[in-house]
Amino acid sequence: MLTPMNFNSDNVHGVDEAILTALGEANAGTARAYGYDDWTLAAEARLCEVFERDVAAFLVVTGTAANSLALAACCPPYGAVVCHHEAHIVVDECGAPELFSGGARLMGARGAGGKVTPATVAALFATLGRGEHEQRPSVLSISEATELGTVYTPAEVAALAAVARERRLRTHMDGARFANALARLACTPAELTWKSGVDVLSFGATKNGAMGVEAVVFFDAALATDFRYLRKRTGQLVSKNRFLAAQMLAYLADDRWLRNARHANTMADRLAAAFRALPGVRLPLPVDANAVFAIVPRALHERLQAQGARYLVWPGEGPGTDTVGEHEVFIRLLTSFRTSAADVDALVAAAG
Amino acid sequence: MLTPMNFNSDNVHGVDEAILTALGEANAGTARAYGYDDWTLAAEARLCEVFERDVAAFLVVTGTAANSLALAACCPPYGAVVCHHEAHIVVDECGAPELFSGGARLMGARGAGGKVTPATVAALFATLGRGEHEQRPSVLSISEATELGTVYTPAEVAALAAVARERRLRTHMDGARFANALARLACTPAELTWKSGVDVLSFGATKNGAMGVEAVVFFDAALATDFRYLRKRTGQLVSKNRFLAAQMLAYLADDRWLRNARHANTMADRLAAAFRALPGVRLPLPVDANAVFAIVPRALHERLQAQGARYLVWPGEGPGTDTVGEHEVFIRLLTSFRTSAADVDALVAAAG
Amino acid sequence: MLTPMNFNSDNVHGVDEAILTALGEANAGTARAYGYDDWTLAAEARLCEVFERDVAAFLVVTGTAANSLALAACCPPYGAVVCHHEAHIVVDECGAPELFSGGARLMGARGAGGKVTPATVAALFATLGRGEHEQRPSVLSISEATELGTVYTPAEVAALAAVARERRLRTHMDGARFANALARLACTPAELTWKSGVDVLSFGATKNGAMGVEAVVFFDAALATDFRYLRKRTGQLVSKNRFLAAQMLAYLADDRWLRNARHANTMADRLAAAFRALPGVRLPLPVDANAVFAIVPRALHERLQAQGARYLVWPGEGPGTDTVGEHEVFIRLLTSFRTSAADVDALVAAAG
Amino acid sequence: MLTPMNFNSDNVHGVDEAILTALGEANAGTARAYGYDDWTLAAEARLCEVFERDVAAFLVVTGTAANSLALAACCPPYGAVVCHHEAHIVVDECGAPELFSGGARLMGARGAGGKVTPATVAALFATLGRGEHEQRPSVLSISEATELGTVYTPAEVAALAAVARERRLRTHMDGARFANALARLACTPAELTWKSGVDVLSFGATKNGAMGVEAVVFFDAALATDFRYLRKRTGQLVSKNRFLAAQMLAYLADDRWLRNARHANTMADRLAAAFRALPGVRLPLPVDANAVFAIVPRALHERLQAQGARYLVWPGEGPGTDTVGEHEVFIRLLTSFRTSAADVDALVAAAG
Repeated sequence: MLTPMNFNSDNVHGVDEAILTALGEANAGTARAYGYDDWTLAAEARLCEVFERDVAAFLVVTGTAANSLALAACCPPYGAVVCHHEAHIVVDECGAPELFSGGARLMGARGAGGKVTPATVAALFATLGRGEHEQRPSVLSISEATELGTVYTPAEVAALAAVARERRLRTHMDGARFANALARLACTPAELTWKSGVDVLSFGATKNGAMGVEAVVFFDAALATDFRYLRKRTGQLVSKNRFLAAQMLAYLADDRWLRNARHANTMADRLAAAFRALPGVRLPLPVDANAVFAIVPRALHERLQAQGARYLVWPGEGPGTDTVGEHEVFIRLLTSFRTSAADVDALVAAAG
Repeated sequence: MLTPMNFNSDNVHGVDEAILTALGEANAGTARAYGYDDWTLAAEARLCEVFERDVAAFLVVTGTAANSLALAACCPPYGAVVCHHEAHIVVDECGAPELFSGGARLMGARGAGGKVTPATVAALFATLGRGEHEQRPSVLSISEATELGTVYTPAEVAALAAVARERRLRTHMDGARFANALARLACTPAELTWKSGVDVLSFGATKNGAMGVEAVVFFDAALATDFRYLRKRTGQLVSKNRFLAAQMLAYLADDRWLRNARHANTMADRLAAAFRALPGVRLPLPVDANAVFAIVPRALHERLQAQGARYLVWPGEGPGTDTVGEHEVFIRLLTSFRTSAADVDALVAAAG
Repeated sequence: MLTPMNFNSDNVHGVDEAILTALGEANAGTARAYGYDDWTLAAEARLCEVFERDVAAFLVVTGTAANSLALAACCPPYGAVVCHHEAHIVVDECGAPELFSGGARLMGARGAGGKVTPATVAALFATLGRGEHEQRPSVLSISEATELGTVYTPAEVAALAAVARERRLRTHMDGARFANALARLACTPAELTWKSGVDVLSFGATKNGAMGVEAVVFFDAALATDFRYLRKRTGQLVSKNRFLAAQMLAYLADDRWLRNARHANTMADRLAAAFRALPGVRLPLPVDANAVFAIVPRALHERLQAQGARYLVWPGEGPGTDTVGEHEVFIRLLTSFRTSAADVDALVAAAG
Repeated sequence: MLTPMNFNSDNVHGVDEAILTALGEANAGTARAYGYDDWTLAAEARLCEVFERDVAAFLVVTGTAANSLALAACCPPYGAVVCHHEAHIVVDECGAPELFSGGARLMGARGAGGKVTPATVAALFATLGRGEHEQRPSVLSISEATELGTVYTPAEVAALAAVARERRLRTHMDGARFANALARLACTPAELTWKSGVDVLSFGATKNGAMGVEAVVFFDAALATDFRYLRKRTGQLVSKNRFLAAQMLAYLADDRWLRNARHANTMADRLAAAFRALPGVRLPLPVDANAVFAIVPRALHERLQAQGARYLVWPGEGPGTDTVGEHEVFIRLLTSFRTSAADVDALVAAAG
């Protein structure tokens, strides 16, 4: 089961040992079920501290659920969610946002490097405006970090959220890799979210060391009034919720989440530096988080595969900043809290 | 956080230590994500062994999801699910079956002790039959054990499934407490399910010692063709699925699931025997599994509460076999794999 | 195609000639499509007059759509609609309320004569109250006239609406036969609706002489803010909407709607008087509108059928006020704006 | 209400007089409700004749409903519909396809002139293929005539349907303007549909002279097994269905549908010929049906508007075959069965 050169995703790795330990510690005695236990209350309080304000936070099990529930809370069934056309919610969630929202449309705006811009969002709005014949844009959703490993600065987030607010849209941030983005930026969690106009965040923990827990964090409590109902009716309310909360508490304790993310990012930098030096290899995108996207010669790709390296041949359209040649492959390599320098070096050696 | 007399539910208890240990063991190395890992394959194979045939089994996180997904796989959006009018899917899942099925109706049949019968199901059918003006019954769902702690024998299951089959309905079994039912009956898992006509089972593990895992087990593989899509679009596909599978494997290893259930049942028997002897207390239902339902004097109820005992005042209609008097309360006490004889004795002492 | 003794439903009859004529008159020139034409504006204004206040009114094509859209506007997908357990929305709309609302539950309260009461509604509420584990009652829906041909007085409506308001529910009135109810009561349309606490009305016209048009009438405009989107996404926005509006205008002109309803009611009275005199026949319910429910000897039923009489053998549970014997049949006979005294007399003669 | 130069849509015109007459004739006597009447049976039989084979045909009220129901019958909720990115189902139906299908995605392929091609459809497929993480393409939907007034030849339809069949997709044709397309092509209704691989057709009548009726026509009866349920639960089953059927019968009688379409097309040709001769005006698309798309100088546009001409400034991306300049406007002019040569000439005079 061990694949030393596995850069396929950050979820191929297991669980941070500290988080496993926390599960064991939470296993003492009885506790109220369905999220009314003390661990859950503590996790909610901790998230308020992390974001320096009152938030309405809800634990769920998967990132797909976190995103789809966050969107469902902001978007009516006749509404639309504006997002990058290759956002995770568009291409990787099999219609969960549509299901949970009761039929809302995802409207994909374009943008290089996985990022939408005020201009591309405005261009999409320009094709709309005919009233009830079309779904009404209700939410802007951005990914932080993006699916192409890039990161919006707080200023970029604020500019997008401002465009959204002008049109009366809410702003959602898919933070499946929020920690990786934050670890790169010189800013606080608050600055990257509500201080920049974000209304609701999918706060990921699973990809960065948890076993399976995400939080939906509302900065505008009015959006969360009935969220408990939404979570329950989508099968995301866990009976033994203390074990979700224990994960989140351990994740946030002692800056573990940021340390894990910083490590993953450093490993991505190490990998990127080595790959940039390989002949015929181009890195068309900045390495802002824990993903390295590379355009590599097909021969190199085949050599790596043959030696057991695992990574993703990116199924989307390309980086948007460069062209993938006929004899080239566009690949994604992900590092995680558990990737070691030796893992990276083994890959680089295989490529050399 | 310790409540020594907590009989509120079987989910107030934590996790079987052996299952926690299994989580730690599964944390080695990398693994394919999203259910294509070796643990998941092993868990699926193990379920085939348990049920003595090929089954199509899928791990999910919550019982609500297991039930709602199982029903969605069998019931078209214009269909109806026939079940007891106080079934868990009716009164405890906030419409998840409706959401996951795309709008199917739950049609509640009556029946004492939480059980429907061929007669009550037929009575419900007799009110139907006007074609497209009404939803078409497509699934019969029964709970094993029932929400009132009773158990269907294989012969009873077979009789109900036969009624369903005659009308071209599928039969679903909500087995959130399947182990408790089985532990009481002198039969095999196969005999209680597919050999009695069950098409799909929600196989519960969480209430009986797991942290959070259930399996949807299809005995008719044709129903499962596209189930992966259903699971994904409902946010129930976990990225680090090996940790669901590890739970299930440990649960099924060495008959742990049956030993746990037998223990819980024995504790329920002990509690029932003591309560039957209390003045003014009646047990209107057989104790077939790990639930004790009692009609108790309000004064006793208040005394127990005052001493910190935790159990449920049953919100439903009553046992159907007895009447709850004005100065009485109808309560449910649940035991679990972790309930000790001392816990029971403490409660009985408090009631004495 | 002529069945002279057809009392099967009020929709077996065609269209009021005056309404057909209005269709022809509306066929001159061009008009804006999708409900922005002058006829539609006039129909909306006319409904304001009829109800003596500003209303937000929307034309749709079917009663099922009117009800389901009205409910969808008031009930969140995790909500529930409380109504009589044999209401049209429960037993005759194949789940359209569930679909249009995104999964809301219909919760049936009991009640003799097709009517719920404050007591039976309160009894239903008493089984609820466990938060997000169950759907939250959000709307009370009553039928006026009811499916059993009875009518709520304004005082009865007000008492029910008060119970609803206390629990923060909205009140919906299914007025598929609103005209028939109103024609019997000594009150105004306003008194029977918003002055008694009704928030939204399905205002039927089709059963009472139109070809196919109903209005969803909101007395609380806040509920209607986005109704145009709901109507469009359910396929109920008609392009040549002037022809819906022309029907509604002709229906409301010169009190045609009330004259038609009064006529139908009078024919029901005539039929009821004659049936009451038949040996072995009982009328277990008041004839408040245009429906006559009768318990008749099976022999009489067979004789009538043999002579070509058409009416409905009621599929529901019975009147709730009397018992249907083994050799008896519970039937419904409906009269309409087009039923003649001769039609009634022919039926009575056949029964004689 | 008369706007002599109204080319805004084909639905601004009223109803063919012969169809109005048919409504009057259908108003005799009683008839079974809900589509079990003789007119409906006759209309279904007539559609079999028109298409030279057994079809399963269902009348509904709006084009949005026809399309959304046809798609819902072919596409699972976790499926996707591949279509032109500016198809009516994408940009003009406010999510009705999503609602009726239970959440299916519309995936827009590109293509000049409103047409997809085997190549652009294949390009879309090339971005897919990752199993349950994405919705599964299940239907190919093409519009005949397209939203840009172009027409697929039977050979083009067959080529697209073949691509669909290879990937196990069904083929749906949005025939809101089917008659206009057919009137231009030298082929039979059968050749343009099932003989070319179409599985289900939305057969429009409203835009071409009916008051409000469309047929969903299944060439593969297996897709229609439960369609009655779908139609009912979406509020599209009309009680007095004979009046839908009477419209359809009159529409199909004496080739009225084709005569009406031919007339509209001829008027479009007349308009196109005159516009092509105007200085600064370009017609970037063939006039295959009853739509004329023109790139006109903004000054001309303003002059026409000032004189009361009505037509649409096309909100979409442009023709795909030409570029709209800064001082130009891309407009759509539609003719109908009722557009007269004088209407066209008045417009041309205003433009001159």
